[in-house]
Amino acid sequence: MLPRGRPRALGAAALLLLLLLLLIGFFLLGWDPECERLEPDGRAGDLGCSHCPLTPRVPSDGRLRGASALHEDPLAGHGVHNHSACDPQPPLPPKCELLHVAIVCAGYNSSREVITLVKSMLFYRRNPLHLHLVTDAVARNILETLFRTWMVPALGPQISWIPNKHYSGLYGLMKLVLPGVLPPGMTRVIVLDTDVTFASDIAELWALFAHFSDKQVIGLVENQSDWYLGNLWKNHRPWPALGRGFNTGVILLLLDQLRQVGWEQMWKLTARRELLTLTATSLADQDIFNAVIKERPELLQPLPCVWNLQLSDHTLAERCYSEAADLKVIHWNSPKKVRVKNKHAEFFRNFYLTFLGYDGNLLRRELFGCPSQPPPEAEQVKGATFPGLGEPCPLLFWWLPVLLGACPVLALALSRTPQLQRALAQLDEEDACFEFRQQRLTVHRVHITFLPHKPPPPRPHDVTLVAQLSMDRLQMLEALCRHWPGPMSLALYLTDTEAQQFLRFVEASPVLSARQDVAYHVVYREGPLYPVNQLRNVALAQALTPYVFLSDIDFLPAYSLYDYLRASIEQLELGGRRKAALVVPAFETLRYRFSFPSSKAELLALLDAGSLYTFRYHEWPQGHAPTDYARWREAQEPYRVQWAADYEPYVVVPRDCPRYDPRFVGFGWNKVAHIVELDVQDFELLVLPEAFTIHLPHAPSLDISRFRSSSAYRDCLQALKEEFHQDLSRRYGAAALKYLTALQQPHSPA
Amino acid sequence: MLPRGRPRALGAAALLLLLLLLLIGFFLLGWDPECERLEPDGRAGDLGCSHCPLTPRVPSDGRLRGASALHEDPLAGHGVHNHSACDPQPPLPPKCELLHVAIVCAGYNSSREVITLVKSMLFYRRNPLHLHLVTDAVARNILETLFRTWMVPALGPQISWIPNKHYSGLYGLMKLVLPGVLPPGMTRVIVLDTDVTFASDIAELWALFAHFSDKQVIGLVENQSDWYLGNLWKNHRPWPALGRGFNTGVILLLLDQLRQVGWEQMWKLTARRELLTLTATSLADQDIFNAVIKERPELLQPLPCVWNLQLSDHTLAERCYSEAADLKVIHWNSPKKVRVKNKHAEFFRNFYLTFLGYDGNLLRRELFGCPSQPPPEAEQVKGATFPGLGEPCPLLFWWLPVLLGACPVLALALSRTPQLQRALAQLDEEDACFEFRQQRLTVHRVHITFLPHKPPPPRPHDVTLVAQLSMDRLQMLEALCRHWPGPMSLALYLTDTEAQQFLRFVEASPVLSARQDVAYHVVYREGPLYPVNQLRNVALAQALTPYVFLSDIDFLPAYSLYDYLRASIEQLELGGRRKAALVVPAFETLRYRFSFPSSKAELLALLDAGSLYTFRYHEWPQGHAPTDYARWREAQEPYRVQWAADYEPYVVVPRDCPRYDPRFVGFGWNKVAHIVELDVQDFELLVLPEAFTIHLPHAPSLDISRFRSSSAYRDCLQALKEEFHQDLSRRYGAAALKYLTALQQPHSPA
Repeated sequence: MLPRGRPRALGAAALLLLLLLLLIGFFLLGWDPECERLEPDGRAGDLGCSHCPLTPRVPSDGRLRGASALHEDPLAGHGVHNHSACDPQPPLPPKCELLHVAIVCAGYNSSREVITLVKSMLFYRRNPLHLHLVTDAVARNILETLFRTWMVPALGPQISWIPNKHYSGLYGLMKLVLPGVLPPGMTRVIVLDTDVTFASDIAELWALFAHFSDKQVIGLVENQSDWYLGNLWKNHRPWPALGRGFNTGVILLLLDQLRQVGWEQMWKLTARRELLTLTATSLADQDIFNAVIKERPELLQPLPCVWNLQLSDHTLAERCYSEAADLKVIHWNSPKKVRVKNKHAEFFRNFYLTFLGYDGNLLRRELFGCPSQPPPEAEQVKGATFPGLGEPCPLLFWWLPVLLGACPVLALALSRTPQLQRALAQLDEEDACFEFRQQRLTVHRVHITFLPHKPPPPRPHDVTLVAQLSMDRLQMLEALCRHWPGPMSLALYLTDTEAQQFLRFVEASPVLSARQDVAYHVVYREGPLYPVNQLRNVALAQALTPYVFLSDIDFLPAYSLYDYLRASIEQLELGGRRKAALVVPAFETLRYRFSFPSSKAELLALLDAGSLYTFRYHEWPQGHAPTDYARWREAQEPYRVQWAADYEPYVVVPRDCPRYDPRFVGFGWNKVAHIVELDVQDFELLVLPEAFTIHLPHAPSLDISRFRSSSAYRDCLQALKEEFHQDLSRRYGAAALKYLTALQQPHSPA
Repeated sequence: MLPRGRPRALGAAALLLLLLLLLIGFFLLGWDPECERLEPDGRAGDLGCSHCPLTPRVPSDGRLRGASALHEDPLAGHGVHNHSACDPQPPLPPKCELLHVAIVCAGYNSSREVITLVKSMLFYRRNPLHLHLVTDAVARNILETLFRTWMVPALGPQISWIPNKHYSGLYGLMKLVLPGVLPPGMTRVIVLDTDVTFASDIAELWALFAHFSDKQVIGLVENQSDWYLGNLWKNHRPWPALGRGFNTGVILLLLDQLRQVGWEQMWKLTARRELLTLTATSLADQDIFNAVIKERPELLQPLPCVWNLQLSDHTLAERCYSEAADLKVIHWNSPKKVRVKNKHAEFFRNFYLTFLGYDGNLLRRELFGCPSQPPPEAEQVKGATFPGLGEPCPLLFWWLPVLLGACPVLALALSRTPQLQRALAQLDEEDACFEFRQQRLTVHRVHITFLPHKPPPPRPHDVTLVAQLSMDRLQMLEALCRHWPGPMSLALYLTDTEAQQFLRFVEASPVLSARQDVAYHVVYREGPLYPVNQLRNVALAQALTPYVFLSDIDFLPAYSLYDYLRASIEQLELGGRRKAALVVPAFETLRYRFSFPSSKAELLALLDAGSLYTFRYHEWPQGHAPTDYARWREAQEPYRVQWAADYEPYVVVPRDCPRYDPRFVGFGWNKVAHIVELDVQDFELLVLPEAFTIHLPHAPSLDISRFRSSSAYRDCLQALKEEFHQDLSRRYGAAALKYLTALQQPHSPA
């Protein structure tokens, strides 16, 4: 087998090794030299290899055109039942049969990666799927929130979580223990790497289980890189493998049979033996799978190459896809991932990008005629117990019992709640506020901590800046990071495509990529109105410090504010003695480039010079008048102010403060209502004498322009206000009266 | 057949007619009553109808589960060969076989609609396609530009245009004449309505030609609405049809056979006869197809219902899709289109929305192993001649000869030009300006006149406002419309998804939807840098008046500017005597809400009061200093100014002025270079004494922030400037020297 790709200087030793391998190839494995003759362009001669064509075309004419030439040859004469390659395409599983998929996923980046896989799987699937996710705490936290809010019908009936508290290096071996950790009730499972993309219905892959002979328990696609040929570099000593070896990015496992043949013992023994002479490699489970298969080839059912098209470097994948009528699964197994250099990479990238940017909301498709209730089997999953528990382990596997011990499989029911469905059904399309009420009931997909994040160390007076934004405010982030050195929790309202643009934006910015203490939470766009308070609540819920500074994205805080707030919180004993909201006075500049005041004195000077104003002095003074700027000028100590109608200051409060009222969507009254809640719950309003934050100008948001243009919008906001006050009275009785009275003289904002 | 959907008051007459129809159904057409018994939920009893299941599952197990019960029954005992319904799925056409698709498309809205159809077709297709588009001038202009810039491989080899100069009412009959107007070389074609969406590979539909018996020449899916049953309302008298009739949203035509059986004579005779008793209906061609089929049922090959799932109101489609394992083609044939009320509409809408928002760039996928050269046949298409030409026509068809006479089929070669490919290949990835050069070579998909547009009447001194924008400036449009009552040509840089948001934005705005003289041209996003000058050139090329005002989207012109400019152009005899660029002095406000000056006097007052400034007075004075604002204050007459380095005024010039230099992408120097071009071509720079335009503040664009943050960006811009000047010298020799000298003291723009 000659190496392809860029020519590399091979040492004499390597050359000999190569010849040796070739000889082994011809005589020991009985390779068909015809198949290995390479054309100038490095592609195999078609004649020799296509004993039968490569892969079924969808829909097939009833005949599989055959399995990959790549996997047939090295196994020829090995007693492996690969006649199946030319068998008729087995019938697909019944419309509503539940298919089981296991994925190992750990950390922030894999949690992003896996979503593209899941989207591609859901796009083509026509069966209910049950995901079994082997995760660490990070991935679980992210994915649990995501799937709960995604609410994809017939995904699940539920998702099972197989947590693992160990550092992710060991995730590389998790696939090996799946027969042990997956519930006994499960007989078969498809195991996937997070870096694969589906280009077809996973049921077609599931159907290949039908090809398994009595002895075969594992389905794999042959390796399409030269790794196991050991000719990649001088002294390259891969683990033992059959021919080119097999890739574990896509695995079909017959769980029952694996348990029967004593899989666990088998791979541990092999691994232990090999480890006497070899050192562990980065490929982890794949090495062990291959070593076992080399000893027990009869366990293997080779799968057609299109089911794991490996786009690593120097790949032979082209031999596969150039003959295939269509692709099934693309595997981005190069370290460069989708940036891999492959002369057709752009073609494959398009599949990946299709689902990367695909609006996940569109995958909330029901499956007609399939029951949405979890089948009984799903219940078994819950209480599953695990074989091999507590069994003594060789050194390498010290972690196994712990791991298995840590495996109570937890389940999360998905599917829209009946309450929600009822609420949506009860909406009256003729109601002038229909759009508002519908938006308020919309459950947005939420991807918390979209980027790697280091939670702040627990500190009693620490404070997190909380804000929300959409794409048109991205350029505020760098400045914000310079002004606020502390932790931040930011909710971003984005489409799936924009989420990727945001990712690139952060990667391109040294300032942003340097910050590990900023948590970005992506809330996916849905519906016509901006769900400002739902966004604030997401960011608020994810703040990890005892206090939060509830800000807006267009504001830059004083450079000193972070330290000053923590000092004030400590000094005022907010935690203990008093229940207060600290007011940070707000100002605005009408210039979008100006020199930010480094002190209160400087700020006052700018104010007097007329190049700064108190916030919305021209358009909406009552929003901040109660802060009493005149008093603030002179103030040396925090001073208390009284609530007044339409007051909407920026405040610092304990993390467990009341949430924002999600009924206020779009523009108007969203902060005002929150301050009312604080006041009715007896939060003192304390203005901090040295604190300030400055609003930078920007074009009005679409929602504001819409508000200004539409009287219906204003009327509806009025209606929502009144409902808010009714609820308030219900909850707080007489205490809420003053707000109702205040409402009697309504001013319409801005 | 009982009416379903909302109960309607039926007059006694209608009831009788109904009973009559039922009798005809039972005895004449031999209906199986079993099939017509309706369950409480209005769905047909499954047992009775599913003699064989409904439709193949993809990939099928080799057996079609059967054709629609809907179409089997009415045709039973009619000698129609519909056994095919249960035949094995015929093999798909060979990988590289060219499939022919004909679509009738006229006007602005259909031109938008058809793109979603084409996207869905391209997403699933694996064969080269040849589109035959029957268009009016509007659709052709739009689609020609779109497909040329889309550059989808293996679409075509080329697209054929069958222009029709007649008002679109007649497009309703175009499908009937296709056998006549399509080239004799073509033997079969799939005809599609613009309002269908594919959910599968069109090759599967093409494969159904194999089911046609010797006599069958037309493939259609049965009608799924009650239209032809004539029970929709009192005295509803539809055209004659076989049972429920057949829907012409998806048609398979065997062209040769149709010509042999004398199709043209056949349908004309039938139509003429029916027109004696019936009046033409809105369904147009569908009525005639059905009337012909009623007389000659043997011509028809019924297709499985999944190939034309009709989501009109009171549709029986649910009987189809609830049994189907998967869908093939969804037909939005309700007047409400995708807003149709159907209890599963959301499910189907998701398919539609998938492709509505799908990034069309991702469909630039090559077909492996298929030649990209146009097969010889494609050539025949060019010189095609048309049968029936000049033949005497009955009154209804007076237009036919004209139409046919107007049918020189034109062809447009697609596929990336070799020059472009060479240029792209020659780019050096290590070059610091690689990103810039790549962006400059990017061919963006362009959808001109995205919305309905009324070209301005030809007027010798008329002027079009030309500008470009992206999503974050949409809210400028309403104000701009108020300030500029004349024609505008605006290029929008959007993703496919944003284009739809933009559409909704315009529909929701009374101001915008009232304007027919604003042409919006969508340029689809691709690449990391903002192609500002390419956008300006698109808008400029689409301006239809003799003069253009080259503005930017953040500027609001004086209310009087449009009239004033036309008067000035006339007075200064720009057309004839002098070659000049009229300078419109630029100012800025730093407030994003202020009262716009209604006159020069008011403007000067604001200027003195310090609430207005000359444009970029603080950051980049040299950009406009040469306008000489001091002189402008006093000026009564237009005055000439001299070019100076970095001058970038807003000017009015003839439409055929030099284009913007596309090498300047992102931010910086894009307008400056254009003014240099004007100056070197001896355009006088004349400042108009009463003209002014005012810049409104906005957050800096991402490109600007990037420019400010990255020195590499600045260095690269410097390099591009120098190359620009070298080109200038090459083209203008000594005349270009002064610009090079001016460059020796470069200021980096703000």
